[in-house]
Parts: sequence; C-alpha cells; structure tokens
Amino acid sequence: MRKVSVNPDIVSRQEMEVRWGDCDAAGIVYYAKFFDWFSDGRVGLLKQVGLPYHANFHEQGIVMVAIEAHCRYRKSMRPEERFVLETRLAELSRSRMTFTYVITRQGDGAVVAEGKTAHAYVDSAGKPFDCQKRYPALWDRLCEIFAAGN
Amino acid sequence: MRKVSVNPDIVSRQEMEVRWGDCDAAGIVYYAKFFDWFSDGRVGLLKQVGLPYHANFHEQGIVMVAIEAHCRYRKSMRPEERFVLETRLAELSRSRMTFTYVITRQGDGAVVAEGKTAHAYVDSAGKPFDCQKRYPALWDRLCEIFAAGN
Amino acid sequence: MRKVSVNPDIVSRQEMEVRWGDCDAAGIVYYAKFFDWFSDGRVGLLKQVGLPYHANFHEQGIVMVAIEAHCRYRKSMRPEERFVLETRLAELSRSRMTFTYVITRQGDGAVVAEGKTAHAYVDSAGKPFDCQKRYPALWDRLCEIFAAGN
Amino acid sequence: MRKVSVNPDIVSRQEMEVRWGDCDAAGIVYYAKFFDWFSDGRVGLLKQVGLPYHANFHEQGIVMVAIEAHCRYRKSMRPEERFVLETRLAELSRSRMTFTYVITRQGDGAVVAEGKTAHAYVDSAGKPFDCQKRYPALWDRLCEIFAAGN
Repeated sequence: MRKVSVNPDIVSRQEMEVRWGDCDAAGIVYYAKFFDWFSDGRVGLLKQVGLPYHANFHEQGIVMVAIEAHCRYRKSMRPEERFVLETRLAELSRSRMTFTYVITRQGDGAVVAEGKTAHAYVDSAGKPFDCQKRYPALWDRLCEIFAAGN
Repeated sequence: MRKVSVNPDIVSRQEMEVRWGDCDAAGIVYYAKFFDWFSDGRVGLLKQVGLPYHANFHEQGIVMVAIEAHCRYRKSMRPEERFVLETRLAELSRSRMTFTYVITRQGDGAVVAEGKTAHAYVDSAGKPFDCQKRYPALWDRLCEIFAAGN
Repeated sequence: MRKVSVNPDIVSRQEMEVRWGDCDAAGIVYYAKFFDWFSDGRVGLLKQVGLPYHANFHEQGIVMVAIEAHCRYRKSMRPEERFVLETRLAELSRSRMTFTYVITRQGDGAVVAEGKTAHAYVDSAGKPFDCQKRYPALWDRLCEIFAAGN
Repeated sequence: MRKVSVNPDIVSRQEMEVRWGDCDAAGIVYYAKFFDWFSDGRVGLLKQVGLPYHANFHEQGIVMVAIEAHCRYRKSMRPEERFVLETRLAELSRSRMTFTYVITRQGDGAVVAEGKTAHAYVDSAGKPFDCQKRYPALWDRLCEIFAAGN
C-alpha cells in the first residue's frame, strides 16, 4: 500500500494537567492512562487541521480501529502536574494512519513518555477498507493537509 | 544486569467478559482498556504463584513502575463477549520484570490481542533499586518460583 | 406512567475483586468506579434472567440512558479485596427502570456501599419512548420475569 | 457538628470538552464519567482558592474520602461537545465537605447534569478526624476562604 510522505512539521501541542482520576494506588499516573491521552492527541490534531474526528470519521461510519499501540515511560507524574502532549501524524496510507506522541513535563521540560499508535480504517461492520476508494474526498483532504511539500 | 532464565510453562489463565464500561463510542473495546486487563493478568499471575502484589510489593514499598507497554490488536470485541487472558513472566532481572499477554476470544478461539509490558522496581520516592540487594527474600522467592529448571 | 410491582426476590449476586486500576492515588477504590461496577450488576442481572443487554437492548436500538445515579459509601476497599455485588430491579415502568445495588465485603461481611440508578429508554436519536408501545414483546418478557406474584 | 455558613458566590468554572474515552458503546458520555469530572471540579475549586488538593490534603496525609455521590442527568453529550463545569462548596464542617456541580452545554446552554458529592476527612489509616483539631491552620484557611461574609 503506497504511503504518503508526511510533513513532520504539523504538530498538535496540548497543555494538560494530571487529574486525580488519572492516578493509581501508587500515587502516580496509571500506565494505561497515557493511551487515553494519546486519543486526546489524535482528536486534537485532527481538529486543528480542520478534520474533527467525530464529524469526519465517526459520523461517516469510519472507525479508526487501533492495530498497534506502544508507549515508553521515562518519568512518573503525580496529580496536578502539568505537561504538554505533542502529537504528529507519522504515516498515512490508504489503509492506515500512524501517530506519534511526546509528553513533556512543564517546569523541568523532562520527556515523560513517548508513544506510537497505528490505526486501520474499518467500516461499522469491522471490515477494513481502502480510504482513497471508499472516501475519495476525505482522502484528498488528508493528502492536502499532511503530505510533505504542501 | 543478569537475567534469570524464566520457565515459560508458568501461565495464569483468566476467563473474563467484556464489560459495558470497557467499550468506546465505536461500540468495541477501547484500545487503552487492554492495558488495564494486562494489569489484571499481572496481579492474577503473582497471586497464583503465591506472591499477591498488594501484600508483597505495594505494602512493602515496592512500585513496579511501567517502563514500556505494547499491544498488537487483531480483532475487535463487543460488550458481553467472553475471552481468556493468558499472562506469562517473560523476563526477570534484579532491576525489572517483563510480562507477555495473549487474549483469545472464546467461541472461535481467535487471538484478539497480544501484549507486553516491562516494569522496573522503584521505591516510594521513585528511585529504581536492585531487587536482590534491597529485598533478598523476595528475590529468592521470585527465582524459586519462576526460574527455568525449577 | 403505571409502574409494575416488582418481585424483590430476583437478585443477581456477583463475586468480584478490587482491581489495581480501580484504585486512586489514596490507595482505595476510586469513588466513580462504583458506578462502573453497578453497570456490571445491571448487565449481570439482565443476563441472569435471560435478557442479555447487548442483544436485547443495545442491538435493538434501545439505549437505557442514566437519568439518576446515587451511591452511599460506608467502607473503603483496597486492591485485591473481594466483595459481592447484589443487584435488584427496584422499579419497572413503561418509561424507565430503577436498579438498586449493595456491595458487601467478603471476610467481615461489612456493607461497603449502597447504590441506586434510574434509566430511561431512549432510541438512538436520544428520544424517550414508551417501552410497551414500541417493543411490546420485550415489555411482556420484562413483566413476566420481574412482576411480583410471577 | 457545627457547620460553617458557606459563601455561595465562590465558584470554579472549567471549560471542558467531551473526550473520546469518555463515551460508552451508546456513543454518549458514560454515566460514571461525570463523577470523574466532579473530581476535576473539586480539584479546580481548591486550586482556585489557593489550596491545591495534592499539596494541602494528599501530601499532608488527609484523604477526602467520598461518603455520598449523586448525579441527575438531563441531556446526553457526544464526543467533542464542549461544556462548562461549575463547582461550589455547599457545606463545610469539621468532619466533612459537600460540593455541588452543574454541567452546562456550550452552544445551547442546556443543563446537562447536576451533581453533589460529600466527603469526610480521614487519615491514611482510614480513621475520620476533626479537621479543626487535627489541622487547625488548614481549618482556619478553609473558614477564611469559604465562610459567608468574608
């Protein structure tokens, strides 16, 4: 499947704060929570470029189903600590999108975590599809927005 | 850091069911939820071998902090589907433990997801430590239980 | 709206265990988590009486949307503690169902929490409807199962 | 237990957005999630008045354990909808605090939900205590900040 060469300069930066419910019994952010934040990153990036996920994907019958998720944790965080979540599209193809994430603590600027998630386009019956064929207008918009050189 | 060669036959098998709150707006299990299940797998494995996490780690001041987490998703699941979570210890060293997970759907036996998480031992101040030096009795028990050949 | 007099002897009893991810930074079960357990109770009760929620409600286009939720907390619980969740249908009418919940700790039998949730039937557009009119077969089954004297 | 008469004009207003992970398989915000937002409201209110929860309560060994929680739901919300969470302290006594919450949708200004949570002060062993006796400086600050007429 042909991959689009993606512009690495398009990034969503979200300032966030560790919430009480994000932490586990060890008093630090629960490791699964980072993947929830990565969802916020994807949604934020798509909104920033003018393609809000709910309206342009979910309501059109497109599910961007996770096929892989990875996180490397470098620091722990506690409630009320503030951080920045940076999200980038790393790969775009007619069958999938891959996003990368960097979480940086405010104050000392330490990298707290780095992540990557890959998502396939599937329809509401769970069948994968070719985005360019099934949703050509959306595909063109994605290329316009994210392709390097644009 | 010397690694202990781990017995691959020690496995925890937990029968579980997709709960309503596990699913997202796409009607399928939310991708972050799998990491929550992996926690259940670790806790279940440690309990099965006679080292319940809460009593033997948490209450002793040991945090098994996540340093890496990975999941590959192969199938989607919906509420009330039943599955089996298999958890194994893959690596044991004086600084960390790595676990692997396989989730298999009941009925068709399809592999739904495969995961891996790595955890370092840190104290309540967040400092990593050598388990053999700081908690020799626990370390001996871990080796006794998990070392290949035992 | 006429209420059906409900048989108080129909109860679902689920044995459960506090999971690591259920707890907050205070080391005890997070208060919002109880409402998640209550969902497990409703789903378990409906399954026990032969009306699994996913197949009989969700897939038929019925959303049982929460209109009220209440919990009174009497004890705290920590990871790996075991408890029993009892769920009963308290009220059944053509527009709503109300459930009650009691959580009892195993070991000392202490009541940990008591809850109540009320749910209206709405369609996928979010419109409330009369269950007897719109889904007469389901309504008859509900009455058959839950009405006092049956 | 003497109650302090609370100034009803002290309110925290937080602008928030429904996140993907907040929604359940019905595509609307999961009912348990509101209680998680209420935690954000409490934390936000305490921070706004200069008493951040983590530093002034959690790290001092004070747990504000929930003893009661209630929510009345009036509207459903979907991913990416924006809303305002208003939080007020409703009752302050030497043994407990009660907070009230109103969630209003942006756009139409509709009230989405109203909630109330009550919390007792307990120590790390789970024992309730009299805040004025055990933490007189904190108690004076709370009265100074929240008492009506101040």
